[in-house]
Amino acid sequence: MRDAVPGGTIVRVRDVDVGGKRIIVIAGPCAVESEEQVISTARVVKAAGALLLRGGAYKPRSSPYTFQGLKEDGLAILGKARDATGLGIVTELMDARHLEAVGEYADAFQIGSRNMQNFTLLDEVGGTDRPVLLKRGMMATIKEFLFAAERVAARGNSRIILCERGIRTFETATRNTLDLNAVPILKHETHLPVIVDPSHGTGKRWLVPHLARAAVAAGADGLIIEVHPNPDEALCDGDQSLRPDDFIQMMREVKAIAGVLGRTM
Amino acid sequence: MRDAVPGGTIVRVRDVDVGGKRIIVIAGPCAVESEEQVISTARVVKAAGALLLRGGAYKPRSSPYTFQGLKEDGLAILGKARDATGLGIVTELMDARHLEAVGEYADAFQIGSRNMQNFTLLDEVGGTDRPVLLKRGMMATIKEFLFAAERVAARGNSRIILCERGIRTFETATRNTLDLNAVPILKHETHLPVIVDPSHGTGKRWLVPHLARAAVAAGADGLIIEVHPNPDEALCDGDQSLRPDDFIQMMREVKAIAGVLGRTM
Amino acid sequence: MRDAVPGGTIVRVRDVDVGGKRIIVIAGPCAVESEEQVISTARVVKAAGALLLRGGAYKPRSSPYTFQGLKEDGLAILGKARDATGLGIVTELMDARHLEAVGEYADAFQIGSRNMQNFTLLDEVGGTDRPVLLKRGMMATIKEFLFAAERVAARGNSRIILCERGIRTFETATRNTLDLNAVPILKHETHLPVIVDPSHGTGKRWLVPHLARAAVAAGADGLIIEVHPNPDEALCDGDQSLRPDDFIQMMREVKAIAGVLGRTM
Amino acid sequence: MRDAVPGGTIVRVRDVDVGGKRIIVIAGPCAVESEEQVISTARVVKAAGALLLRGGAYKPRSSPYTFQGLKEDGLAILGKARDATGLGIVTELMDARHLEAVGEYADAFQIGSRNMQNFTLLDEVGGTDRPVLLKRGMMATIKEFLFAAERVAARGNSRIILCERGIRTFETATRNTLDLNAVPILKHETHLPVIVDPSHGTGKRWLVPHLARAAVAAGADGLIIEVHPNPDEALCDGDQSLRPDDFIQMMREVKAIAGVLGRTM
Repeated sequence: MRDAVPGGTIVRVRDVDVGGKRIIVIAGPCAVESEEQVISTARVVKAAGALLLRGGAYKPRSSPYTFQGLKEDGLAILGKARDATGLGIVTELMDARHLEAVGEYADAFQIGSRNMQNFTLLDEVGGTDRPVLLKRGMMATIKEFLFAAERVAARGNSRIILCERGIRTFETATRNTLDLNAVPILKHETHLPVIVDPSHGTGKRWLVPHLARAAVAAGADGLIIEVHPNPDEALCDGDQSLRPDDFIQMMREVKAIAGVLGRTM
Repeated sequence: MRDAVPGGTIVRVRDVDVGGKRIIVIAGPCAVESEEQVISTARVVKAAGALLLRGGAYKPRSSPYTFQGLKEDGLAILGKARDATGLGIVTELMDARHLEAVGEYADAFQIGSRNMQNFTLLDEVGGTDRPVLLKRGMMATIKEFLFAAERVAARGNSRIILCERGIRTFETATRNTLDLNAVPILKHETHLPVIVDPSHGTGKRWLVPHLARAAVAAGADGLIIEVHPNPDEALCDGDQSLRPDDFIQMMREVKAIAGVLGRTM
Repeated sequence: MRDAVPGGTIVRVRDVDVGGKRIIVIAGPCAVESEEQVISTARVVKAAGALLLRGGAYKPRSSPYTFQGLKEDGLAILGKARDATGLGIVTELMDARHLEAVGEYADAFQIGSRNMQNFTLLDEVGGTDRPVLLKRGMMATIKEFLFAAERVAARGNSRIILCERGIRTFETATRNTLDLNAVPILKHETHLPVIVDPSHGTGKRWLVPHLARAAVAAGADGLIIEVHPNPDEALCDGDQSLRPDDFIQMMREVKAIAGVLGRTM
Repeated sequence: MRDAVPGGTIVRVRDVDVGGKRIIVIAGPCAVESEEQVISTARVVKAAGALLLRGGAYKPRSSPYTFQGLKEDGLAILGKARDATGLGIVTELMDARHLEAVGEYADAFQIGSRNMQNFTLLDEVGGTDRPVLLKRGMMATIKEFLFAAERVAARGNSRIILCERGIRTFETATRNTLDLNAVPILKHETHLPVIVDPSHGTGKRWLVPHLARAAVAAGADGLIIEVHPNPDEALCDGDQSLRPDDFIQMMREVKAIAGVLGRTM
């Protein structure tokens, strides 16, 4: 496939080209909690250079007793944030029956780690022409990850962005083990853009900037980062969310790395 | 929960009690391929002592290019096999939108390993009163497995059978590493029946009887076993499917183990 | 190799044949703590049917700040326990320079999990004619385990007993994941006796009998079990050590399983 | 410990400071094969900016049937390479009984991955005043890695360089999964220099430069890299050894990354 598309496929999300010379950063809160939280975060991350806004309206959590998301209300809030800032929206689709509702607001559908082999969902987004941000399953080999992408493409939608987000190993010092070996391999095996999620890949706020730099140095085309105005009060993943100031600092460092690799931000 | 239900919950699937003194065996092909294949297998496994018939009409396979199941036609074949043999049917539900179609034939809904954290699906089967055979995710901790069961129960359906089926580890000599530690732990942490799938847990036909014996010795309430009349021609999982004769021999051995533990078959 | 030695190799440890029809049980404390502790434990386990005594004089512990064993004094205590009970001694060799000292007391050298690829040690015990109980590394594939055995055999000593003792996986509910798939595979790939260590394989006392039964049902030739007269005061591995009464009960259950497989105890 | 040594400990190997502002690169062949091979490689890597020479005289290989190293002859060759180029020597100590022989040539003792919990060896090098390059076990948690370092330090030698070299996971696309999360964690938990081995961490030549850049971006103090004049004929690890030209190119890229982080090379 590389041969056919020498420079790599560009996947356009709203007005942002993913997979080109420019490193793109998608940022925002783990979960949509309130209009105020989302819009203020969107403004901060945009000012710091983020090009797309992330935020979950439906939250697939292991325990049935924790916060499960604002659902349709959350989607509407994301829509308001887009109106307010112009940032395109990346948000997770968890259920094929939500395709229309989520599709009303999402500039790209995110398929989460736990759903990487939810073939129903892959087939559904494969039948749309909307960009798909496909996260690697925490238990998926690179080969299985590529099969999941092929499943989407087989339905006609090849606007796929691959996302390495850490795998499950015996190590318990971090939430997951970010597998940066996967970045050059995925770039080699496909023509698709490859981004990295160091927030889930580490699970710890202070580690995120280190691994964000490393991801870009390894050749990633972008990053997806959790940012929260007040992580200690976050309803979801507060431990791994950057504070706005941390994010601004991280963006400066990543930009410097991008520069020496001949890339822009 | 153990305290509340000292002897353990009995989950009745059609006319079979799962979780009581009797060890129950669910057997049949990986995939429904033809009426002839399913009915002949059903007769063989019934004669050897199996109490329920398994078989997949929808096949969640990693690669999009392999056999994906006979779908509705497969369900109808399972219905005919039930009519012909009286065996209750256990078959996988992969998509919430198939709930009605699968529910027309299934005496128990199987939730597969890849869908253990498909919360949509868990919520749907949780809203029925049909027994649920919940397989452990190949990379799910025991704690996450129990959360998945709680999710089903939280919707009102506590007719859940837990199934250990092997986890993903660094070992490549076997398809998965069957985690028999999980059997006594699951029995200890819940009141639910616990069965074991040594077919997926090993991935190799000749290993299945050894691990089937071990599973029952470890305290499992039952087994789910892939049997195919001609494994070399199976469209799915032929390498791990027992031949009818192997199954008959395995049943004899397992029955002897059950006996010394004060259980019947 | 199976073809050449159809019934499997018998490895004689002192006066006990390992690998024959009789299931053998090696039992004793994790660490030698005192003469009283070892001799009383030896008497209990012998009365319950154990044929060999285990106990560590040198303790390879991850942290440098925990108890590291009684060393030479511990070996002498093991010698007294052998005199008092007639049980042969299985004890770990951690350092090639201790070969002579340990060899004075050990009827079989144990090579521990952390030393499975300590090639110096493998070469040294390979140069003796003493039986070697070789434990699988906690992160060793079955193939690497067999290479380690071949290394010992290549030096001329093929009196090797293989021991599955659990591997490291993502699961944290247990200390390790006991890999019982390995038992039939090791029996198939070699002619050597294969035993199982459910104490390290689970890390929890109450799980040990369940997995001991399962191991024998899977085809193991024996078990190695940690027993302590007072586990709550053990200097090492108290959580996984059986109390004498638990051990007696476990032996009864294992004997029943052995019987239905045509084996004795 | 960080508090006590704010800037981090500098470990001097021959005339090279490890752990300071300068990123140091250790390079050379996996195994010492011949004088010609080692000296030519040493000249190439020195010219490209490597500060220390690596090379194994004793080779701990899983299979007993593969090349096991030139042993004493290999050490002498390393000595000649030092004389010829002035590069300090880093070479593996596999056996406490070789301490004197290896010590005659080694400017730093390497403790290999398989020996990270070989407590005998740790105690021995802990009793010297020679720098120790301690590689993380492929199955060791970060906590266990730090315990191993403490074991060396407890004997009085705190001239320790920690080396992340990849852990064993379920992924088989690469030889190991390089865990770059470990780099900032190790720097945070200790005052010791931390280097990365992308050769073993990936197992594939073409991946090495990508991960070398990432390692430095993540904050590593240095790299250890396998280089061979003719990898296709290497007796050991040819697949992961860089050709001289690849190494020169990699050094340029890494130097650029180092620069934007305020470090030199």
